[in-house]
Amino acid sequence: MTTSALTKVSEQLCFGGKQIRFTHQSAVTNCEMQFSVFLPPQAQTGKVPALYWLSGLTCTDENFSGKAGAQRVAAELGIALIIPDTSPRGDGVPDDPDGAYDFGLGAGFYVNATREPFVKHYQMYDYIVSELPALVEAELPVSAVRAISGHSMGGHGALVIGLRNPERYRSISAFSPIGNPAKSPWGIKAFSGYLGDDQSQWVHYDASVLLAKTEKELPILVDQGLADNFYPQQLRTEALIAAAEQSGAKAQIRLQDGYDHSYYFIASFIEQHLRFHAKYLAN
Amino acid sequence: MTTSALTKVSEQLCFGGKQIRFTHQSAVTNCEMQFSVFLPPQAQTGKVPALYWLSGLTCTDENFSGKAGAQRVAAELGIALIIPDTSPRGDGVPDDPDGAYDFGLGAGFYVNATREPFVKHYQMYDYIVSELPALVEAELPVSAVRAISGHSMGGHGALVIGLRNPERYRSISAFSPIGNPAKSPWGIKAFSGYLGDDQSQWVHYDASVLLAKTEKELPILVDQGLADNFYPQQLRTEALIAAAEQSGAKAQIRLQDGYDHSYYFIASFIEQHLRFHAKYLAN
Repeated sequence: MTTSALTKVSEQLCFGGKQIRFTHQSAVTNCEMQFSVFLPPQAQTGKVPALYWLSGLTCTDENFSGKAGAQRVAAELGIALIIPDTSPRGDGVPDDPDGAYDFGLGAGFYVNATREPFVKHYQMYDYIVSELPALVEAELPVSAVRAISGHSMGGHGALVIGLRNPERYRSISAFSPIGNPAKSPWGIKAFSGYLGDDQSQWVHYDASVLLAKTEKELPILVDQGLADNFYPQQLRTEALIAAAEQSGAKAQIRLQDGYDHSYYFIASFIEQHLRFHAKYLAN
Repeated sequence: MTTSALTKVSEQLCFGGKQIRFTHQSAVTNCEMQFSVFLPPQAQTGKVPALYWLSGLTCTDENFSGKAGAQRVAAELGIALIIPDTSPRGDGVPDDPDGAYDFGLGAGFYVNATREPFVKHYQMYDYIVSELPALVEAELPVSAVRAISGHSMGGHGALVIGLRNPERYRSISAFSPIGNPAKSPWGIKAFSGYLGDDQSQWVHYDASVLLAKTEKELPILVDQGLADNFYPQQLRTEALIAAAEQSGAKAQIRLQDGYDHSYYFIASFIEQHLRFHAKYLAN
């Protein structure tokens, strides 16, 4: 892999580190992908561990970069932030037939689609698990010591990807995750569209199902606001809590009074999530 | 003044405080105005001092609210953030005849327009100096102990308003201000359009002119990034530095290597600005 695999779109100094936006041609999603990276000052002198952040419906890599205020603590702790887009994009990439916000562009749900016409491009699970880390670790001063987090649809993605690949991540966290998508309106629409009606295929992408049977002691931190418009119907946090109790997983799931689904909630608690991950990334 | 003067559009919990968006009918700008407020937790038990933040070209009250990461430190210090819009808006409000970004809507330049057709609505100086604080202090748990800051066009506004009204503010700061608008392309366009060609009227809105002759010891902090695309031509920071030297004003004007004109720069240094203001607001 040569350095030409990544095209730098922009680079901006932030808290003494570098906030960079890249594009690259993906062999997995068969289109050009964009992502953002924050490299802390410590990356100037050696490889640093990374937190992968998966964003929610309608987002790109720019929402977390611009709104979460994560760079301050990441710069202090020496953690890179890797912030992918939420779907494949481009003229050849099929969208929701009605242009809805919760399927298609901006709504890849971090699955490998098996249905036409989505199968060609919507391979976000493999992209996040394999292709993007390989690219980042080959091209940037970022080590293979990883944690994963995300918000809403991205919280679902972080939990599913972390739980299915415990050897690849040190810790998992999530804000307002879609915790049991096989039984929520958003998840049912997405899984039907990308995976088809065979619900035996859906369980591989349902955090509550995976958490209920996990045998690994991967540390998990989840924050859910109680003034969130999508709680409980879409997010089904209680299913996630029940699943953690069933398996005895090392999951701390916190209900935060008064907070909503927005980045004001994420900004308020991202420092705690970063310090949580830093404990495991440092070892 | 009754509480019906303010209409609450939204309220979100953030760092234990309240991020609120209001609209109200302005008698000064003759249209409905929108602004945002962050009330720190301390406002639940008493009046708190306030930092007024003036935003730059193309912004609304939402840019600083969502991107600067200021609420964390404001919540710690017990400072309210008052974040007005950058111009009057609405169907009856005239815009730049060519729809340019640097005049008209989103570009009020914090002046009292004297030229038609702008004179009726573009009275942003009086709105910021008088009407908005009176409204905020009557309706919200916010005291008349004030500081003022801003970015770019809003940095110009903060310096001009603070320097012309030293009895109303304890301290002034600015990021990347248009420091000498009477001699910069942005400022010349705006002042010609709002005030006309008589440059003797422009000097009342030029921070370098005002700073060169100030006799008050109002503390001033300015940060300017050296990788800023608009530096030096539009911003003319050197004129501001020369003006401060001429009057011996208590101004700290810092040139920050590598930082650009964006909110990544503001986010990186807003904590220092808030702690700077807090010293003077506390007395």
